[in-house]
Amino acid sequence: MRHILVIGAGKSTGVLLDYLKEKSETHQLFITVGDKDIDQALRLTQGHKNCEAIALDVFNAADRKTQIEKADIVVSMLPARFHIEVAKDCLKLEKNMVTASYVSKEMQELHDDVVKKGLVFMNEIGVDPGIDHMSAMQVIDKIKKQGGKMLLFESFTGGLVAPEHDDNLWNYKFTWNPRNVVTAGQGGAAKFIQEGTYKYIPYNRLFRRTEFLDVEGYGRFEAYANRNSLHYREIYGLDDVLTLYRGTMRRVGFSRAWNMFVQLGMTDDTYVMEGSENMSYRDFVNSFLPYSPTDSVELKMRNELKIDQDDIMWDKLLELDLFSSTKMISLKNATPAQILQYILQDSWTLEKGEKDMIVMYHKFGYELDGERKQIDSTMVCLGEGDYKTAMAKTVGLPVAIATLKILDKEITNPGVQIPICSSVYEPILKELESYDIRFRESETNYLGYNPIHR
Amino acid sequence: MRHILVIGAGKSTGVLLDYLKEKSETHQLFITVGDKDIDQALRLTQGHKNCEAIALDVFNAADRKTQIEKADIVVSMLPARFHIEVAKDCLKLEKNMVTASYVSKEMQELHDDVVKKGLVFMNEIGVDPGIDHMSAMQVIDKIKKQGGKMLLFESFTGGLVAPEHDDNLWNYKFTWNPRNVVTAGQGGAAKFIQEGTYKYIPYNRLFRRTEFLDVEGYGRFEAYANRNSLHYREIYGLDDVLTLYRGTMRRVGFSRAWNMFVQLGMTDDTYVMEGSENMSYRDFVNSFLPYSPTDSVELKMRNELKIDQDDIMWDKLLELDLFSSTKMISLKNATPAQILQYILQDSWTLEKGEKDMIVMYHKFGYELDGERKQIDSTMVCLGEGDYKTAMAKTVGLPVAIATLKILDKEITNPGVQIPICSSVYEPILKELESYDIRFRESETNYLGYNPIHR
Repeated sequence: MRHILVIGAGKSTGVLLDYLKEKSETHQLFITVGDKDIDQALRLTQGHKNCEAIALDVFNAADRKTQIEKADIVVSMLPARFHIEVAKDCLKLEKNMVTASYVSKEMQELHDDVVKKGLVFMNEIGVDPGIDHMSAMQVIDKIKKQGGKMLLFESFTGGLVAPEHDDNLWNYKFTWNPRNVVTAGQGGAAKFIQEGTYKYIPYNRLFRRTEFLDVEGYGRFEAYANRNSLHYREIYGLDDVLTLYRGTMRRVGFSRAWNMFVQLGMTDDTYVMEGSENMSYRDFVNSFLPYSPTDSVELKMRNELKIDQDDIMWDKLLELDLFSSTKMISLKNATPAQILQYILQDSWTLEKGEKDMIVMYHKFGYELDGERKQIDSTMVCLGEGDYKTAMAKTVGLPVAIATLKILDKEITNPGVQIPICSSVYEPILKELESYDIRFRESETNYLGYNPIHR
Repeated sequence: MRHILVIGAGKSTGVLLDYLKEKSETHQLFITVGDKDIDQALRLTQGHKNCEAIALDVFNAADRKTQIEKADIVVSMLPARFHIEVAKDCLKLEKNMVTASYVSKEMQELHDDVVKKGLVFMNEIGVDPGIDHMSAMQVIDKIKKQGGKMLLFESFTGGLVAPEHDDNLWNYKFTWNPRNVVTAGQGGAAKFIQEGTYKYIPYNRLFRRTEFLDVEGYGRFEAYANRNSLHYREIYGLDDVLTLYRGTMRRVGFSRAWNMFVQLGMTDDTYVMEGSENMSYRDFVNSFLPYSPTDSVELKMRNELKIDQDDIMWDKLLELDLFSSTKMISLKNATPAQILQYILQDSWTLEKGEKDMIVMYHKFGYELDGERKQIDSTMVCLGEGDYKTAMAKTVGLPVAIATLKILDKEITNPGVQIPICSSVYEPILKELESYDIRFRESETNYLGYNPIHR
């Protein structure tokens, strides 16, 4: 039996484990799932004969070392900031490792030592980052191999509610970490390149500079820019590309409505509000509006944001019960962002049985034999409810597949890696198709940002 | 002769020195002006027999100590962050000290030791902070002495161009540090209290939530909120006050126009723009607008900010030459804020002979014998051109007066002080009147934020 240690029994670990359990007989696998809370781990192993659940606190160095020592490969499903302790042990004990998180500076610094020991530390092999890298590089490499020159690369991902449960006015429910949604786009202007020009969008304009995207069978989406689209320019080999843009997908209308919160200052996470524990939803709203002895919070809000009587924006606010004077925020010393999250979770939490959806959209513009062309590539993954959410599948499956392929020595390129080599992405993308995670490509003339040429 | 050491021959030191020179015979004063650049100091001493100019680098500990040792009192006109080194020496060598800057944390920590040695370290005795403290406390103390209960305190200051040279569409020119103007309001939401409710304004709304202020003889002004209005709540003894608001004054229309820069992200000081050294003004503007193969920067700007054909906002932009493709920004690795400052200095620099103006406006709401009343108090100081600007006068004179009064033992209260005691503000405000820096008070019914009671 080969021994796999999975640390962290979080949201995606269930799907990951299903995959490994299924292969455990044919591939001779024994899987240990460690979590600070052993019940979390037990809930997932469910007495499978090739699995065991253990209590494991990743900050207990001795326990951590003992468990890693027993393993042939280690999968860290912990929050990103905890990986580094595991990674250092893996290096020392000469174990391969897999994570779905962005490569941190500390992780990157291990690269040379990891290479020296011939180990594979595979990171960014979830959905975003992960499937986005693999599916993008597959097309980019194909274009380049044909002799094409890349002109444009745009990439968009969204975690949304599945169409069958898309039943509120925002066309949105929380399907992953709500905090990331509330604070999205903060911490600096979004930066990207459009037709050779650097462009910057400040936070207060981010949700008003969206782009539309149509996905066959699923209708229209919109996307707002991610903070730094240029991070992968060099890594993807796109140094000379004229347009480079990465964004987050929502259903059309979400961003315009979300912008109301941004404009009022409700997404600010940098200061604590006075007396938050005794505030009603209405008091919270009123904190961002001028005082008036006569006018209602509603009228002040309409006036401040210039919302017409018949604007759907208004109904979106009402749907959240935002003006309730009886619903209380029971959070002490909370920031506006924390309070807004609390209010939104009241409306946007997926109910039992409700399903989520992951949507991805890439655009590749290129020149080949003097002709400008474009490939659009889309992927939609639907959740199957319970723990088999689209998010859990698109994170858990590539991690699981990569883990087994490293164990089977099908992936051997040593170092701190991300999945951008064809030897890595080809077999993984191929196997993902058997789980119905597949991209659909379509070719058009090059569209770019030049509608006159259309 | 008593020996005064003035460190820093900056913008306000000329007026300060004029005052001390004039009193030097009757009060037996000898003044040493030290500056890193001796020419700056010589330009101010101008061979006056009771003055000398010396080269003094405040970071040369030995020189600094030698000079402080010779003095009876030390005035630091250096940038705020340099005071602390001088203060530590003054404490060691038992010298009194005066600055016009906010009390830093490090300065405050010296308080107990300063008291022990019976020294006076007077700070915040310029215009804002300084004259604002003194003039506010004078009225607050008067109201309290009468048995009144404070309900509201609002305080506004503006450094503007004098009416006779107020000849551009923005009704604004730089009269002090341009950088502070460009980055004003950044770093967190503005916080204040209105009629007992905490209110918060995010940066992107700051310049749209202004208040109007009429000053007799000078017409209408507007004010936007300072970041933290509550800092002096306790110090002023206004713990129970229902409304507390501090703001910055501009001519009406400035803020609405300034908001265009804020909305586009041009005031951001947190990142460096690619290729700033080769940008034209037009390129700079275009960086914040979407790419278009056909539309002009002008049209994109109008569309992005929804500026009508006949809106004066547009003329304000044109006046700055903002769309020039020939005017270049020759700054390397510059932030948007630095570039914007560069462009604005091109238009908003005071020409030789042009005069500035300081305007201050306080509102005091209170209850006395069951009646609600309000006192409005305003001050306008006009520059006299050259170095006798309104800013230099309103900073330099109170510093000079305080220095002499400490030397003459008329101000003796030991410790790290700000001018909020009547024994300090009464004689200084009285003497400022002889320099035509005076407040005009008017009484009305309490207005507050309750227009229905008007």
